[in-house]
Amino acid sequence: MITIVLLGAGNVAKHLYEAFLPLNLVKVIQCYNRKGIPIHENQEEVFVTDNLQNLKKADLYILAISDDAIVEVSDQLPFQNRLVVHTSGSVPMKFMNDKNIRGVFYPLQTFSATKEVDFTSIPFCIESEEENELMLLKNVASQLSKKVYEISSDQRNILHVAAVFVNNFTNYLFSLGNDICKENDVPFEILHPLIQETANKITEMNPDNAQTGPGIRNDIQTINRHLKLLNNDSQKQLYTALTEAIQIKYGKKL
Amino acid sequence: MITIVLLGAGNVAKHLYEAFLPLNLVKVIQCYNRKGIPIHENQEEVFVTDNLQNLKKADLYILAISDDAIVEVSDQLPFQNRLVVHTSGSVPMKFMNDKNIRGVFYPLQTFSATKEVDFTSIPFCIESEEENELMLLKNVASQLSKKVYEISSDQRNILHVAAVFVNNFTNYLFSLGNDICKENDVPFEILHPLIQETANKITEMNPDNAQTGPGIRNDIQTINRHLKLLNNDSQKQLYTALTEAIQIKYGKKL
Ligand SMILES: NC(=O)c1ccc[n+]([C@@H]2O[C@H](COP(=O)([O-])OP(=O)(O)OC[C@H]3O[C@@H](n4cnc5c(N)ncnc54)[C@H](OP(=O)(O)O)[C@@H]3O)[C@@H](O)[C@H]2O)c1
Ligand SMILES: NC(=O)c1ccc[n+]([C@@H]2O[C@H](COP(=O)([O-])OP(=O)(O)OC[C@H]3O[C@@H](n4cnc5c(N)ncnc54)[C@H](OP(=O)(O)O)[C@@H]3O)[C@@H](O)[C@H]2O)c1
Repeated sequence: MITIVLLGAGNVAKHLYEAFLPLNLVKVIQCYNRKGIPIHENQEEVFVTDNLQNLKKADLYILAISDDAIVEVSDQLPFQNRLVVHTSGSVPMKFMNDKNIRGVFYPLQTFSATKEVDFTSIPFCIESEEENELMLLKNVASQLSKKVYEISSDQRNILHVAAVFVNNFTNYLFSLGNDICKENDVPFEILHPLIQETANKITEMNPDNAQTGPGIRNDIQTINRHLKLLNNDSQKQLYTALTEAIQIKYGKKL
Repeated sequence: MITIVLLGAGNVAKHLYEAFLPLNLVKVIQCYNRKGIPIHENQEEVFVTDNLQNLKKADLYILAISDDAIVEVSDQLPFQNRLVVHTSGSVPMKFMNDKNIRGVFYPLQTFSATKEVDFTSIPFCIESEEENELMLLKNVASQLSKKVYEISSDQRNILHVAAVFVNNFTNYLFSLGNDICKENDVPFEILHPLIQETANKITEMNPDNAQTGPGIRNDIQTINRHLKLLNNDSQKQLYTALTEAIQIKYGKKL
């Protein structure tokens, strides 16, 4: 059995704890957080410590804590030569203290407190400086998810930038769609199925082949009509910038 | 029974024809397209005409043809006082010839030739200048879909702009995510579940509440690191423009 000490009391720590619970070959033997509070309804207080000095011996220490705290906490750990991983998409593995064997155990998904998580389809990006430890991480991740990828810190950085485009920026476009509808008394929910389908399409075809709209068609009339309909400068600027970018990217095909 | 003549041989005409086939209360009695070719594998040639003069009498004529052709074909129809609708998101109803009773029957979804369509969850935006005809359109749409909305031409215009943001521009962001991954030998499929979840979230929460990322956190360090990683000017400019737009929109909350 692989034993784990789980550090943190946020979204990721809570969801990971729940996901580990039913497993037989992997067991969380202790939790740590600054306030020493249980992170699960059935967790007894003795199971949780607020003192790094009291951490038990385990095969794996998972720092599911804020990006800014990872280096500091990795420095404060009162042991060495053990496997210590963080769960961040953006902190390089080697930023952690090298007194321990370092690794990364990054679930590439957005978690929120309220929403249940099905880990089986969440990609795990794992990394470690030692081959044996990499195997152990792969083993643990495979028990949670069907999708486990060995990803270097550099590649993880790239994934993080790409995720900003496909998650943060995309959500921002949804928020503008919502604003435009609200300002004109049209229910935004009418667009929900289109949004779902837009996301589903990329699992079946290359987004370059799925690109449609007045931009790629160079439909100047529609573009101008749309710009007139928008009554917010920021929306207008973004409409123009994105349309131009689409035309630059696909221009040769026009 | 409501009888329909369906004009056009493109994506929308084909998918609509298939969707009408199993219905009992609604029946397509004839198809028209310029080449006079069947639009379904089991369709006999006599069922299809290439001559507008030969159109049969029906309760409803659906012009599922290119936006640019709608006005012209509505002019050429050799009858009057019948219900004629188009399926476009952007052509105003009143652009069609007023010798007939005009309407709109717009399925708000993106269709492609290869992908099967489940109409039951596709929103239909219907409009007509006459109350009785609006009821007839509502009746027909309700047999295909659970989501039928009365939407004016002005509102449809707004939906179309909003759709450019949530569909065309969003897909463009996916294409950039794909490029960034490809340029760095990272499989884009790792981001598919994140993309699905981003789209699913808006059905459950307001996109303003779902907004995350370095932009809204004003995480200058990460923003600068990301800009350095991007080696394409168009990507950099868009990253900056979208980050600034997010900061302007949510700035007061920071
Ligand atoms: N949320 C996501 O969608 C997501 C997805 C993938 C990866 N991640 C990564 O997973 C990690 C945790 O994210 P999260 O969303 O769970 O964050 P979160 O909900 O904000 O929770 C952060 C946790 O870190 C703890 N913490 C902060 N500073 C600390 C310190 N100096 N010492 C000890 N503990 C400290 C906090 O402790 P207190 O409770 O005492 O404040 C809290 O329990 C981050 O690296 C994040 O990048 C997040
Ligand atoms: N595709 C979508 O995702 C979607 C979604 C919702 C609404 N719509 C709207 O639905 C309508 C049809 O779109 P579509 O995607 O089906 O287009 P499409 O696949 O490009 O097919 C267009 C059809 O229009 C016909 N056509 C063009 N000019 C014509 C003319 N002058 N006279 C007669 N027929 C003519 C074409 O005839 P030929 O076969 O002879 O060339 C073709 O059959 C458009 O108004 C579009 O805006 C499309």
